Amino acid sequence: MFFHVKELQYQAKPDRPDAVYAKKLQEILGGQFGEISVMMQYLFQGWNCRGDQKYRDMLLDIGTEEIAHVEMLATMIAQLLDGAPVKEQEQAAQNPIILAAMGGMNPQHAIVSGLGAKPDDSMGYPWTSRYTIASGNLLADFRANFNAESQGRLQAVRLYEMTDDAGVRDMLSFLIARDAMHQNQWAAAIAELEAMEGLVVPNTFNRSQENQDVSYAFMNFSEGTESSQGRWASGTSMDGQGQFTYIENPEAMGQIPHLQTAPMYIHGTPPHPNQNPNQPLM
Amino acid sequence: MFFHVKELQYQAKPDRPDAVYAKKLQEILGGQFGEISVMMQYLFQGWNCRGDQKYRDMLLDIGTEEIAHVEMLATMIAQLLDGAPVKEQEQAAQNPIILAAMGGMNPQHAIVSGLGAKPDDSMGYPWTSRYTIASGNLLADFRANFNAESQGRLQAVRLYEMTDDAGVRDMLSFLIARDAMHQNQWAAAIAELEAMEGLVVPNTFNRSQENQDVSYAFMNFSEGTESSQGRWASGTSMDGQGQFTYIENPEAMGQIPHLQTAPMYIHGTPPHPNQNPNQPLM
Amino acid sequence: MFFHVKELQYQAKPDRPDAVYAKKLQEILGGQFGEISVMMQYLFQGWNCRGDQKYRDMLLDIGTEEIAHVEMLATMIAQLLDGAPVKEQEQAAQNPIILAAMGGMNPQHAIVSGLGAKPDDSMGYPWTSRYTIASGNLLADFRANFNAESQGRLQAVRLYEMTDDAGVRDMLSFLIARDAMHQNQWAAAIAELEAMEGLVVPNTFNRSQENQDVSYAFMNFSEGTESSQGRWASGTSMDGQGQFTYIENPEAMGQIPHLQTAPMYIHGTPPHPNQNPNQPLM
Amino acid sequence: MFFHVKELQYQAKPDRPDAVYAKKLQEILGGQFGEISVMMQYLFQGWNCRGDQKYRDMLLDIGTEEIAHVEMLATMIAQLLDGAPVKEQEQAAQNPIILAAMGGMNPQHAIVSGLGAKPDDSMGYPWTSRYTIASGNLLADFRANFNAESQGRLQAVRLYEMTDDAGVRDMLSFLIARDAMHQNQWAAAIAELEAMEGLVVPNTFNRSQENQDVSYAFMNFSEGTESSQGRWASGTSMDGQGQFTYIENPEAMGQIPHLQTAPMYIHGTPPHPNQNPNQPLM
Amino acid sequence: MFFHVKELQYQAKPDRPDAVYAKKLQEILGGQFGEISVMMQYLFQGWNCRGDQKYRDMLLDIGTEEIAHVEMLATMIAQLLDGAPVKEQEQAAQNPIILAAMGGMNPQHAIVSGLGAKPDDSMGYPWTSRYTIASGNLLADFRANFNAESQGRLQAVRLYEMTDDAGVRDMLSFLIARDAMHQNQWAAAIAELEAMEGLVVPNTFNRSQENQDVSYAFMNFSEGTESSQGRWASGTSMDGQGQFTYIENPEAMGQIPHLQTAPMYIHGTPPHPNQNPNQPLM
Amino acid sequence: MFFHVKELQYQAKPDRPDAVYAKKLQEILGGQFGEISVMMQYLFQGWNCRGDQKYRDMLLDIGTEEIAHVEMLATMIAQLLDGAPVKEQEQAAQNPIILAAMGGMNPQHAIVSGLGAKPDDSMGYPWTSRYTIASGNLLADFRANFNAESQGRLQAVRLYEMTDDAGVRDMLSFLIARDAMHQNQWAAAIAELEAMEGLVVPNTFNRSQENQDVSYAFMNFSEGTESSQGRWASGTSMDGQGQFTYIENPEAMGQIPHLQTAPMYIHGTPPHPNQNPNQPLM
Repeated sequence: MFFHVKELQYQAKPDRPDAVYAKKLQEILGGQFGEISVMMQYLFQGWNCRGDQKYRDMLLDIGTEEIAHVEMLATMIAQLLDGAPVKEQEQAAQNPIILAAMGGMNPQHAIVSGLGAKPDDSMGYPWTSRYTIASGNLLADFRANFNAESQGRLQAVRLYEMTDDAGVRDMLSFLIARDAMHQNQWAAAIAELEAMEGLVVPNTFNRSQENQDVSYAFMNFSEGTESSQGRWASGTSMDGQGQFTYIENPEAMGQIPHLQTAPMYIHGTPPHPNQNPNQPLM
Repeated sequence: MFFHVKELQYQAKPDRPDAVYAKKLQEILGGQFGEISVMMQYLFQGWNCRGDQKYRDMLLDIGTEEIAHVEMLATMIAQLLDGAPVKEQEQAAQNPIILAAMGGMNPQHAIVSGLGAKPDDSMGYPWTSRYTIASGNLLADFRANFNAESQGRLQAVRLYEMTDDAGVRDMLSFLIARDAMHQNQWAAAIAELEAMEGLVVPNTFNRSQENQDVSYAFMNFSEGTESSQGRWASGTSMDGQGQFTYIENPEAMGQIPHLQTAPMYIHGTPPHPNQNPNQPLM
Repeated sequence: MFFHVKELQYQAKPDRPDAVYAKKLQEILGGQFGEISVMMQYLFQGWNCRGDQKYRDMLLDIGTEEIAHVEMLATMIAQLLDGAPVKEQEQAAQNPIILAAMGGMNPQHAIVSGLGAKPDDSMGYPWTSRYTIASGNLLADFRANFNAESQGRLQAVRLYEMTDDAGVRDMLSFLIARDAMHQNQWAAAIAELEAMEGLVVPNTFNRSQENQDVSYAFMNFSEGTESSQGRWASGTSMDGQGQFTYIENPEAMGQIPHLQTAPMYIHGTPPHPNQNPNQPLM
Repeated sequence: MFFHVKELQYQAKPDRPDAVYAKKLQEILGGQFGEISVMMQYLFQGWNCRGDQKYRDMLLDIGTEEIAHVEMLATMIAQLLDGAPVKEQEQAAQNPIILAAMGGMNPQHAIVSGLGAKPDDSMGYPWTSRYTIASGNLLADFRANFNAESQGRLQAVRLYEMTDDAGVRDMLSFLIARDAMHQNQWAAAIAELEAMEGLVVPNTFNRSQENQDVSYAFMNFSEGTESSQGRWASGTSMDGQGQFTYIENPEAMGQIPHLQTAPMYIHGTPPHPNQNPNQPLM
Repeated sequence: MFFHVKELQYQAKPDRPDAVYAKKLQEILGGQFGEISVMMQYLFQGWNCRGDQKYRDMLLDIGTEEIAHVEMLATMIAQLLDGAPVKEQEQAAQNPIILAAMGGMNPQHAIVSGLGAKPDDSMGYPWTSRYTIASGNLLADFRANFNAESQGRLQAVRLYEMTDDAGVRDMLSFLIARDAMHQNQWAAAIAELEAMEGLVVPNTFNRSQENQDVSYAFMNFSEGTESSQGRWASGTSMDGQGQFTYIENPEAMGQIPHLQTAPMYIHGTPPHPNQNPNQPLM
Repeated sequence: MFFHVKELQYQAKPDRPDAVYAKKLQEILGGQFGEISVMMQYLFQGWNCRGDQKYRDMLLDIGTEEIAHVEMLATMIAQLLDGAPVKEQEQAAQNPIILAAMGGMNPQHAIVSGLGAKPDDSMGYPWTSRYTIASGNLLADFRANFNAESQGRLQAVRLYEMTDDAGVRDMLSFLIARDAMHQNQWAAAIAELEAMEGLVVPNTFNRSQENQDVSYAFMNFSEGTESSQGRWASGTSMDGQGQFTYIENPEAMGQIPHLQTAPMYIHGTPPHPNQNPNQPLM
């Protein structure tokens, strides 16, 4: 169960309205790596957690914090939309600056949400729960989380570069710091689990059942061998259980496929190439 | 530019048709962590790569291999659909086994694709390019890839458990091994980049610009302190640049939001609570 | 900002696992009128609220409660999936009851979420933020909310009918009661605003600017006049400002459209019907 | 069955082309509350109607009218796109007004539809049938319809404010009037059904089966008690069957969830925290 | 503008309810090539038509007919859902036939639409306007229409095979006949336009501006030369303006890409491979 | 299995960056008729092919070529984004040309992909596999392919008109030529199959089972008879097996639908119009 307090987790006050920037800032609210995504991802991982209670508790801690980040961004966007220039079209036509601003706005910020934030990304694409990753395997999921915080901080930093508004930058400096913490956090949680489970997820599948001929082989399918220069192409494998090899000219190991003709009730391409077109088969 | 050879990378022959399993196997073809996703993700990361050529080459190596995995799965699914029981409804009604099989099929495998694979997941949801992650920052993206191979191997292992067909299991044992290799590969590539760039992505943002008061603080937003027992709650941070702290009772640092009334041309909720309903404002 | 307590708002314990029902119950978690929808809808209406603070507070009260409902449903679904029959296929083939159960499951509950709830509906379609309605006009939005609670209670009641599990029914009896309260709540809030603003949203548009010839006319576009028997076809209009009329044979009032030919650089259908196909136009 | 007449229901002639406005006007054609949505919603409610024939007839009357509204908007948009400035890029670079106009256009209006309307919203997001609400319960659905006409009129009014084109405004004044009528219509139909069925949907569920302890309680989950000042917090409930109460400090009534460990074949997080990573479990 | 008559275009009466088949039949109502798709496609092509009025009229004729087909299918599905076995779960568990039927149903037919048709496909995926093709070039679009009627008739025929219900088959025999007519119709319309415009769309682009070295060359990118045996590999081209050639070993004609490093404000992968991770670049 | 060579199939080098055009060019990369669509469509048709091997081979030839086209476009877009003006907002405000350019960019090109191509269309809508058509019936599918190349060439030509960049035009002149070849190719393949199978797809359905009364009748549902002037309204049908007729006043042949009341457990609209609202039915 949840409770709400009225204060934001951190100050979210722009120096001045900027409807064009409001459109861009939507990316880290409702985009693939926006705050709604991590909120939902951590909450669902927590609610579905069948592992140690400390992981459930930790996931719900951070998931609950992310709701507050959604709140901060929604509040910031609503303020960036204050007095958005949606009406004075005729005057705007005299002033290319205003006209360009109107062209750069998300029209749904005026027509649909009435100067409110939307749960969408910077191209107006709606947030979808397909962004939410929760597999029931915590090590797998913590890697998803580590990625999410990496992509999320990268996007926040890019948005920081795209504005000079001190109020917006102040809020972003908070979110960027939290993303740094969360990268550290997931790295720590991953290290803890890898110490117990090893590198390869899931570790509960008996590796003798996998085709071990190809478990450590890098295959060179793009001409040229620049790819042989990486750590992944030679030396002990990262899981400590094999040696990386580099296969310069990989060969096919499978059959040439020949599919059976479909049954007649499927009405696929008829199998008889010389049939009379005026005499259907059935 | 690309060339195709007719043989599959590895054998894809089921022992017998199984239309219900064909539906499930779609998950690792067209699902969020299916082969289409990694194919597109590695190709786009390669094509967009502005870094060292060895990374571009490596990405296109593995991206090209993944096209072959898509091919293997599509071929397998088409064979699992051979002779699917879509027609003999009346007989089926006498035989609950067949009837249940018909209920468990994906009807589009008969109606839409005519016993062919579809680029969809196991619930028939179409593959969407929103699954594709390519940010222009290789360290961020390699974490996405590491996650993708972790989730992908986990799903392949689960599907391995869900069938007794030796031919299907043989193909999965190959894919599971490749996913093990690819987890090792991305771990190696990440290690290489982290040695140069450090842990926190992006490393090119001056950290003095982030709000460093909260860069290493774990905040306890879910009552109870089980979450204090993890590596993330104390000790040196994983980036080696700070100390984790545990904030048991986090406090709000921001304002209580008060949004301005919208301009009249937005026709939001009218600001005057005592207005006469029969006298509109404008 | 938000805080989480570990107890659920209300008990969520099924009497026994039921993976087929788990699939169905997803509808009121991640469907169009599921708990995620109302959670997001009320929170965004609250965060975007530019009206009286009591509405903002009320919206955040109920939005925060809905997060707890999402949590209850996710917890229930995870328990309904305990021990889901995904593995013992061979034995199942002997037992049509188990086989049918396997056919009726959502395969992603095993392959993707590892026996956890998903933020999807009962057909596996992901929750999308296009379900979220927040217009900046509270009277309009409260009508959306009133509808959401009506559809939501209807679906919960249908799901109540579809199970005999006393634990599931107990939890649903709580949610159904809350939906009854929330229908009452939105009806009350609507009554309050309609007393101030009148019936027609938005009330701030000067009605002399609308085409008042058709502001109270019911038009009979489907042959037969059964539709004349309703309250909407005669008598004083509900806003008290007009008389309903019934137009039995509505007539077109507009032009027959004739669109201009497209400019040549659009390469639409060529305008010259007798042109020589071997002599392109430009 | 349907018949088409060539004249539009009402005049749809802009004074001059305006490709930027054409993009915005798409919202009420193909957006969530655009004319396609109400067309499909009323038609499906009519076709699925199992109630009194007068409701079926009325739904098909208005659903058929909405097809004509879609036609008017499509025709208007095509004309607004006449001579759209998509080609003369070089000249445009000299003229910021034209350049801004090109930036504000929907590029698909040129590339994809060749200066025709698209069944999309103002951000180019395609219309989806998930907008269509038809539950089989008319009172629930009429509330959905009442909301749709409220949101729809609000958006049409906002678009009216965003243009000075007298021809566009004339057409909008017609649509705005029809939306006023339709708000009145659904209010009338709701009143009729509520007189028979009462307020709470569905009324056919025995209310003794709901958890009546919470059927009239407002719960204060956001700190502060501004929300106690509304009609919903005290007095007789709107259904006349209870008294609203205000719970200032709501308490959790449910369990702390503890989920069972997943079966081994799910390969979730391993239950044994001290396991040796080099010795997988199976 | 449109009018509705109460009779269906053709009889739509199943012999008996069949909820499992109702799910399948949704494909030709709300699937990619279902009746909603052709309805919307023909109407939008008609409304956007800038060509000869006879094409506009013809498109609106057939678009209007397709609304009637949507109506027939919706009516049929509602009847197939009569008395759907959604409630008697306990009894069902005794009867595997009923249990399998419940597993094969679309649960939203009960929970969401209350035994009504949905504007979705057979996997419950919502109809999306991205299925609608209307380019402003009639010859291109008539090819889209010819394909739509081919796919549509194929699917209707497959559904005919999947039922023994004489009433359903009677309705399908009507739709299948109309699809045969419509294939003939689009073939006729295409022939008319090709006689004027030639084969290659658009014909208004000066072909000297295309790279004519490759305008008639078939390139063999998959090893083996079976593909040389087709009409497309030799002889006069279908547009009568060239000779097909077969390039057995196609060669790359372009550069090896080298992308510039991103500007620092993009925070892509840092260009300096030997940088100190503790010394960020800016 | 596939191999990659480093050179592009054809040169892809713009004369200068143009971030606004990069957004538009996305249409033929990730739009409905972009290169990803034809790549996936031809590959899946090939992999699912149950017909003559020459068709499988041909489909994989062209499918493999299309991967190279995706590569060319992605490379071109990345170069068009070089040095995109995303940062210098303040200076831009002084220069309306730059400001307009910033407004016309896709913000995700900076925030999400870091100046890389995205697998999306020109409105930022993600590519979806619902664009992929593969039915198992080659004649049907070749018509889909013929349409795809027609729409694709039309869009490429429009994009050619929208730029003056000689490098971009050079690449487009290659793609436009290939689209011309591919239109010829599909026309040839269709001619080959129609010679065997006849015009109507599928030809394996016994036409005596269709309702032949309406197999060649054009029905005039839009008032006015301009549509009678086409080839489709009179003369021998295109399949040579009937005579087109023109039905000027089509009449309904079906019933007026009357649906049964829903069972009580569905809680649809209650059947008893005079019930007491305070006495629910069950």
